[in-house]
Amino acid sequence: MTQLPARARDLGVVPGEFPTGPLNAITDVPGVRVGQVTVREGSDLRTGVTAIVPDRLPLPANLFVGNGYGKLVGATQLVELGEIETPILLTGTLSAFRAADALVSYMLAQPGNEEVISINPVVGETNDGYLSDVRSRPITEAHVLDALHSATTGPVAEGAVGAGTGTTALGFKAGIGTSSRQVVLGDGRSFTVGVLAQANFGGVLQVLGQTVDARQVLAGLPESEDTEQGNSCMIITATDGPLDARQLGRVARRAVFGMARVGANYSHGSGDYGIAFSTRSGEPVGEGNLDPVFFAVQEAVEEALLNSLFMAETTTGYCGRIRYAVPHDLVRR
Amino acid sequence: MTQLPARARDLGVVPGEFPTGPLNAITDVPGVRVGQVTVREGSDLRTGVTAIVPDRLPLPANLFVGNGYGKLVGATQLVELGEIETPILLTGTLSAFRAADALVSYMLAQPGNEEVISINPVVGETNDGYLSDVRSRPITEAHVLDALHSATTGPVAEGAVGAGTGTTALGFKAGIGTSSRQVVLGDGRSFTVGVLAQANFGGVLQVLGQTVDARQVLAGLPESEDTEQGNSCMIITATDGPLDARQLGRVARRAVFGMARVGANYSHGSGDYGIAFSTRSGEPVGEGNLDPVFFAVQEAVEEALLNSLFMAETTTGYCGRIRYAVPHDLVRR
Amino acid sequence: MTQLPARARDLGVVPGEFPTGPLNAITDVPGVRVGQVTVREGSDLRTGVTAIVPDRLPLPANLFVGNGYGKLVGATQLVELGEIETPILLTGTLSAFRAADALVSYMLAQPGNEEVISINPVVGETNDGYLSDVRSRPITEAHVLDALHSATTGPVAEGAVGAGTGTTALGFKAGIGTSSRQVVLGDGRSFTVGVLAQANFGGVLQVLGQTVDARQVLAGLPESEDTEQGNSCMIITATDGPLDARQLGRVARRAVFGMARVGANYSHGSGDYGIAFSTRSGEPVGEGNLDPVFFAVQEAVEEALLNSLFMAETTTGYCGRIRYAVPHDLVRR
Amino acid sequence: MTQLPARARDLGVVPGEFPTGPLNAITDVPGVRVGQVTVREGSDLRTGVTAIVPDRLPLPANLFVGNGYGKLVGATQLVELGEIETPILLTGTLSAFRAADALVSYMLAQPGNEEVISINPVVGETNDGYLSDVRSRPITEAHVLDALHSATTGPVAEGAVGAGTGTTALGFKAGIGTSSRQVVLGDGRSFTVGVLAQANFGGVLQVLGQTVDARQVLAGLPESEDTEQGNSCMIITATDGPLDARQLGRVARRAVFGMARVGANYSHGSGDYGIAFSTRSGEPVGEGNLDPVFFAVQEAVEEALLNSLFMAETTTGYCGRIRYAVPHDLVRR
Repeated sequence: MTQLPARARDLGVVPGEFPTGPLNAITDVPGVRVGQVTVREGSDLRTGVTAIVPDRLPLPANLFVGNGYGKLVGATQLVELGEIETPILLTGTLSAFRAADALVSYMLAQPGNEEVISINPVVGETNDGYLSDVRSRPITEAHVLDALHSATTGPVAEGAVGAGTGTTALGFKAGIGTSSRQVVLGDGRSFTVGVLAQANFGGVLQVLGQTVDARQVLAGLPESEDTEQGNSCMIITATDGPLDARQLGRVARRAVFGMARVGANYSHGSGDYGIAFSTRSGEPVGEGNLDPVFFAVQEAVEEALLNSLFMAETTTGYCGRIRYAVPHDLVRR
Repeated sequence: MTQLPARARDLGVVPGEFPTGPLNAITDVPGVRVGQVTVREGSDLRTGVTAIVPDRLPLPANLFVGNGYGKLVGATQLVELGEIETPILLTGTLSAFRAADALVSYMLAQPGNEEVISINPVVGETNDGYLSDVRSRPITEAHVLDALHSATTGPVAEGAVGAGTGTTALGFKAGIGTSSRQVVLGDGRSFTVGVLAQANFGGVLQVLGQTVDARQVLAGLPESEDTEQGNSCMIITATDGPLDARQLGRVARRAVFGMARVGANYSHGSGDYGIAFSTRSGEPVGEGNLDPVFFAVQEAVEEALLNSLFMAETTTGYCGRIRYAVPHDLVRR
Repeated sequence: MTQLPARARDLGVVPGEFPTGPLNAITDVPGVRVGQVTVREGSDLRTGVTAIVPDRLPLPANLFVGNGYGKLVGATQLVELGEIETPILLTGTLSAFRAADALVSYMLAQPGNEEVISINPVVGETNDGYLSDVRSRPITEAHVLDALHSATTGPVAEGAVGAGTGTTALGFKAGIGTSSRQVVLGDGRSFTVGVLAQANFGGVLQVLGQTVDARQVLAGLPESEDTEQGNSCMIITATDGPLDARQLGRVARRAVFGMARVGANYSHGSGDYGIAFSTRSGEPVGEGNLDPVFFAVQEAVEEALLNSLFMAETTTGYCGRIRYAVPHDLVRR
Repeated sequence: MTQLPARARDLGVVPGEFPTGPLNAITDVPGVRVGQVTVREGSDLRTGVTAIVPDRLPLPANLFVGNGYGKLVGATQLVELGEIETPILLTGTLSAFRAADALVSYMLAQPGNEEVISINPVVGETNDGYLSDVRSRPITEAHVLDALHSATTGPVAEGAVGAGTGTTALGFKAGIGTSSRQVVLGDGRSFTVGVLAQANFGGVLQVLGQTVDARQVLAGLPESEDTEQGNSCMIITATDGPLDARQLGRVARRAVFGMARVGANYSHGSGDYGIAFSTRSGEPVGEGNLDPVFFAVQEAVEEALLNSLFMAETTTGYCGRIRYAVPHDLVRR
């Protein structure tokens, strides 16, 4: 099962109808950078940090809690004020609070913030405790600052990197995935919708309607039990469409709805969250013009989740546990 | 394209893994009856009423608003008190308020209710205005009382009947569909989960992963435009598992998530709602035991929506518009 | 206890610090009209309709459900789209659905609406069943159309009129009350905030901190029992400040919070709702500039509720029950 | 203005009608302990930690976000599962994340938790940045563990202690306050309702209806500006009544509503939250029996907030700023 990582489109898997942006990544949205730090130490640690860093803040934003069994930091202020005032971090469950504290450090140190005494760090997490020793809370301030400071435009590393280093989806090794779509609204304006997902949930993989059941595919392989467990999914959507916070809430909902397209089962143990933000103010988007955005985000989520799987490599971790990559031969078209 | 209505299983389409109840219908849940009145008059009216009637009331219940672009009556009290205190009615958009008023009449006339001065009628609706003249608000008190009084256990009529007489889903004629699942919890207890859906939404039909695109299937047929529009979906879930209102909210969410399995696109114009209720009190279900219920409801929604399509017959209505049935040959296995 | 109705300020009761608008009424907000129909028939009916009619629609709006034990029609779409697309009606509990249906009739008949097939009528209600025979559902389409068509700018009738004809608050006869405030934001712009309340809730009356306990004041009077029961409160806030839907939600919350200022006890049986809308778009109001609006709405709610009491006259109704007016001598300053 | 701290009742200020528990404190609820650590260092730090520690966990719980402008940690899981699984911590704004991380440490170390890999720490905060250097994030794991391990039944320290060391309410020095009520339900069962508040909000103090305006009272005193600013209020309610999560949500709402009784103005900058939990399962409380609980919590909040003020001593802190105690002579009865 040795194979090179590949994006969905490289395997001929092309979800949906909208064109992608140039990079097919959340960084296609102007003003959005991504930085990641991967923590792989010995056999115990398979974790990391992924930072989504807008060029300017605050920005309009909203949240959908599909299943609130998670430790998302920053939820109530994000919803009340309809904005993010910090970059968004993703990491492993029990490290979320250290990451939030580090994000506060980062914000306090920003030029112009010398008098700031209120910061609402936004940190999402999923539980990478199958492959990583989460109880050790390995994420340090240095990791977080490294992720933030290294954030760049351009291609985004996918698979078992950053906050996806230790995650699992649909019984296979997953991780970070990204995708984008270009939409043209009824009023003629065109925008980009970009998605970045930390995939870590249960169900049976569906690839453009084809079932790839990990229980069957992996049958007999060592350490291949527990393939269907779900441990949360964080989906970040960015757009340069001037949507307001209420509209971004509608987008965030559809991001979580889109998980079903790859076979997510929305299990009790999977805290599934969508956060959406807009990088641009301007002439508001009429409600009747939102459908292209709604459809595009579902497509981009589907592809981002597939990328998070197909780009991930078989990983051995904590206690010798193994998560296997999806065999590309089963999905190539 | 003349064909007899058929349920999904009759066509070899078997979604999911859980066994169904004996009828594969919401009426498999003990204490749940369904009554329907179909209003087909001349070429203008293709509408009706579907009533889900529990044997006793109030019952624990909750609501998920996937997309609130709808006129659901009774939402705030249902959520506040975590219960339904009336049967649930489904009908066409602009008739929802007359139906609610008629449901009040029904409740006031119930034995023992002589002193009641507060009633919270629950009425869902979807817009059947493509095939029916909704502006005429054709639903009368007599229709509603007829639906309520005729409610029975046993098989449930599906397709273009009751509140589904004029509805459309995924570009094809749809209507009312139902399905059920039997689940065994981790604690050994077994329950039934039953779903009834009023299907009326956009997207591209997926049948167990196979795409059946109405734009292609119906290309060239008269009056086959506008096939992807969405005009709301109401999904009612009943269970005899003793779930409390909070847990039923989690179930209702997954009912709406389940729409994606058949290709729903969650468009702006489609008010998508899930209502879930329990018929039984008893030893509470531990949160960690809910997964079978969560998975079963998604399966049952998938099958109920397919039933609503495969049981519907091609229908001509208002202004000569036509909605075509899904050709069974395309989906038979 | 014969006394002429008087507004709070006529009795020397001046809540808060902001100046009122010219009329001290919701109609101080440009573009907002109010129409009311009072239904007093025989000894059984003490009810009516109050219509808040904006000059143009739709308008940004939001809702806060302080206690959802009520039958508010139109909640989910109002929240989803962040707007009202019809006037707002207030009436008695069981008549809410007939009123909603009549409001649909009104909207369908508006010029330009000939093709409209979706309308989200917004109808609030409180239970006037102590003084009126609510089971008879006396509100007709004619009543509703009369209230809508008679809506005017100018002073608003208060006390036992319209939807307040049969209501009670804090043990005394209450009804409709209104008030307004003029606010100047930090950015120098000035706006009006207007409130109209249908008062019908429990607690012990507080007038600028002075307790006026109905149990003591009315002790020994015939039919003066049950003075503390609560049967819901609807508070409508209008502003010409260009607040968006999210911000209006924050305003609506504070309207309900303001009920405490007159002694509301937020009982189980009192469905307490705030709806806020804005008549104007324009340069958005920065979040840090909202405090004057937040404070003003609480003041205006306090005064509107006092007006609803002090303007109400002792009323005898259904089954010979009596609700007594607040004796002005006890509150005059 | 030298005066000894005094509780409201010691000054003759007795809000409401329900009897208090023996201690008039949240610790009157069996199974609830409180531990506090006060951090007063040099002139810069006036902060601390207050821990509400139930004897067993998890417990049914819910949350009301009156104004989400705060950094409450743990919100989404608390609401989703309707429970708290850790003690509740209160502290200063920017220290919330270090406190959450320390609470994770505490939980991981509990006997029986050796395999636990998911913990949802609940940490509320208010901004004590006027009197304390919040940017230094002074709260350490040792502080948190000290607060948790020192938690006891018995009287609760009030005023400028623990998380209230640096807080302000209504223009005066405030801090931690507590109170309790004993309620008898319609079904004859009696329960205790206990409240603990971290008071830190704006408005004009009302003491049983009497206005005590800090702007006037403190006029001319040094460093007495900015008296009305609000920086959040956390209100924790505990009860041994077997309320479920949904009902506890209704209680939490009324806790926030109760803030108005002392003159809170619910300003933009004040993140006002209520968390309610129950220590006991048992025969559920019928919805119609909840009113005594609803009324009692409002009374207890009123008294807890007054205690937080009257027990606080004039405090000089960061940058030489001063918050003055309420002069008892002005409120004594």
